[in-house]
Amino acid sequence: MPLSEFDIIARYFAQATPGRDDVVLGIGDDAAVIDPPAGQQLAVVIDTLVAGVHFPLETDPYDIGWKALAVNLSDLAAMGAEPAWLTLALTLEQSDEQWLAGFSRGLSELAGQYGLQLVGGDTTRGSLTVTVQVAGYLPPGQALTRQGAAPGEEIWVSGTLGDAALGLRLVQGGLEAGDSAAEQLCGRLNRPQPRLSLGIALRGMASSCIDISDGLLADLGHVCAAADCGAALQYADLPLSSAARDLIAADSGLGDLPLIGGDDYELCFTAPADRHTDIQVLAGQLDCPLTRIGRIEVEPGIRCLEQDGSPRSVTGQGYRHFNESS
Amino acid sequence: MPLSEFDIIARYFAQATPGRDDVVLGIGDDAAVIDPPAGQQLAVVIDTLVAGVHFPLETDPYDIGWKALAVNLSDLAAMGAEPAWLTLALTLEQSDEQWLAGFSRGLSELAGQYGLQLVGGDTTRGSLTVTVQVAGYLPPGQALTRQGAAPGEEIWVSGTLGDAALGLRLVQGGLEAGDSAAEQLCGRLNRPQPRLSLGIALRGMASSCIDISDGLLADLGHVCAAADCGAALQYADLPLSSAARDLIAADSGLGDLPLIGGDDYELCFTAPADRHTDIQVLAGQLDCPLTRIGRIEVEPGIRCLEQDGSPRSVTGQGYRHFNESS
Repeated sequence: MPLSEFDIIARYFAQATPGRDDVVLGIGDDAAVIDPPAGQQLAVVIDTLVAGVHFPLETDPYDIGWKALAVNLSDLAAMGAEPAWLTLALTLEQSDEQWLAGFSRGLSELAGQYGLQLVGGDTTRGSLTVTVQVAGYLPPGQALTRQGAAPGEEIWVSGTLGDAALGLRLVQGGLEAGDSAAEQLCGRLNRPQPRLSLGIALRGMASSCIDISDGLLADLGHVCAAADCGAALQYADLPLSSAARDLIAADSGLGDLPLIGGDDYELCFTAPADRHTDIQVLAGQLDCPLTRIGRIEVEPGIRCLEQDGSPRSVTGQGYRHFNESS
Repeated sequence: MPLSEFDIIARYFAQATPGRDDVVLGIGDDAAVIDPPAGQQLAVVIDTLVAGVHFPLETDPYDIGWKALAVNLSDLAAMGAEPAWLTLALTLEQSDEQWLAGFSRGLSELAGQYGLQLVGGDTTRGSLTVTVQVAGYLPPGQALTRQGAAPGEEIWVSGTLGDAALGLRLVQGGLEAGDSAAEQLCGRLNRPQPRLSLGIALRGMASSCIDISDGLLADLGHVCAAADCGAALQYADLPLSSAARDLIAADSGLGDLPLIGGDDYELCFTAPADRHTDIQVLAGQLDCPLTRIGRIEVEPGIRCLEQDGSPRSVTGQGYRHFNESS
């Protein structure tokens, strides 16, 4: 007999995440009830992953559960917020217990890392679609936003760029790599690690911050547009993993992926040049690579420069829904 | 040229709802930032409507926008919460501007009635699926929950029962009615009016409360299970609209719909018998019909009695996903 909606919740979700003191009433009533800490603001995000669009249909359900939460946590990281609780809207073709067990485990493991509680949700029948909504807390006035970059400031990114886009090409079969490199790149695609500690540490230090979900150029473009300015990037300064470096060295046609590849979930932030040393110290404290990749400029648009100072011509853009044909 | 995700947000959602003082940062950054009122708890809900499952594919987009918000507001009403802000995750086959304009107008009109602000969302490509998440405020300890019913207490419902289920049969073509009755019943199906004022007024008066989304028997069953008790209902006391009464009089096979039909979005609540007059006064103050339909009993299970005291045999149950074949 197939599982009912209530069985699914009881078996795979009700106990999947740790309890929290600020959750007065969790799963099982018409609504969850939360007691937010006094004097804190709430940062709220919602993101959807659609099977066949955001992940290949055959993706491991563990990875889908992990990533559906991770992409939201990355948005909270970009705001400098500390995540607290989530709701889940899960649309499924059928109640496949093996799939549900894997999905629940992926979601649960990442939620457990940050002490997040699943407080409510909705389980419906239809094409596989996963929507997660997460809320976190912030001291008033401390949110990192896309606004606030100013000419002369340095542009930084965390981690490495382009790995997830290369991982996707490996999964789709258009590219080949050694086992170790493939595992590393596919891990970056399927189980991104949100930069939450970094976001919190950047409060009061970064002038603007965004997470790189649609590709560096697209997301940095939002920062520049919000501040009515532009940017110059040094291509040679873009941080690459050794696996990405090798693949790009072997096929220069992949060279734009660190600029335009989506799904990196690293933070891109700006800061005054006099915070350069503080940021380097932070990188060591958090054990998180932070690389200066360019500067904010007055002139609108983003210029990517080769080592000899000539402009790099970049084809393609970040991933956008609905205008693939445009 | 098709609209991009950013165009859709700017054109149809960014200005669709009124601004609020507690929203520090709305649509357009990685997350929204909210400043919840001091000393209030937060009630949080999320609900999904899937095309072809929760509404027929040809449903007017205005009605889809309205209903996607209404079903969530009904959950907040059942908690006694005052709704404040929402997020929207919208998955669309394509960016159809006429559809988006209608959907946005439906969502916007209901949000406007209660001063709700749309603070963020995600627009993705895939089968039409609408997830809305709403948060509202509550004084600490005042939430109406499913727990708390006690033997001897009276069971009440707001409005009338079975209208939406009859409306669905009209839409699906298995039933016919006059124009005025059809309009009334389809309106109840497509544009339910959440009972928010009632929920707030029931704080401190109702011992338990739930909204009737899956059918009276199924939802009252949750209340009884939570309190480890049962219920006796008088069939003749179930409140019916004149349209429903006429259709059921003409076809007794429809007679169970007030008990098992979904999508009513009325409130079912319990209260001690000594609050009977207070509740009748409340019905007048709110201009909202409130009907006592039975009593909570010690014996588990729900018994529905005919006027002569004999048990009514009810076939079918409330709508549940995933176990239609069981």
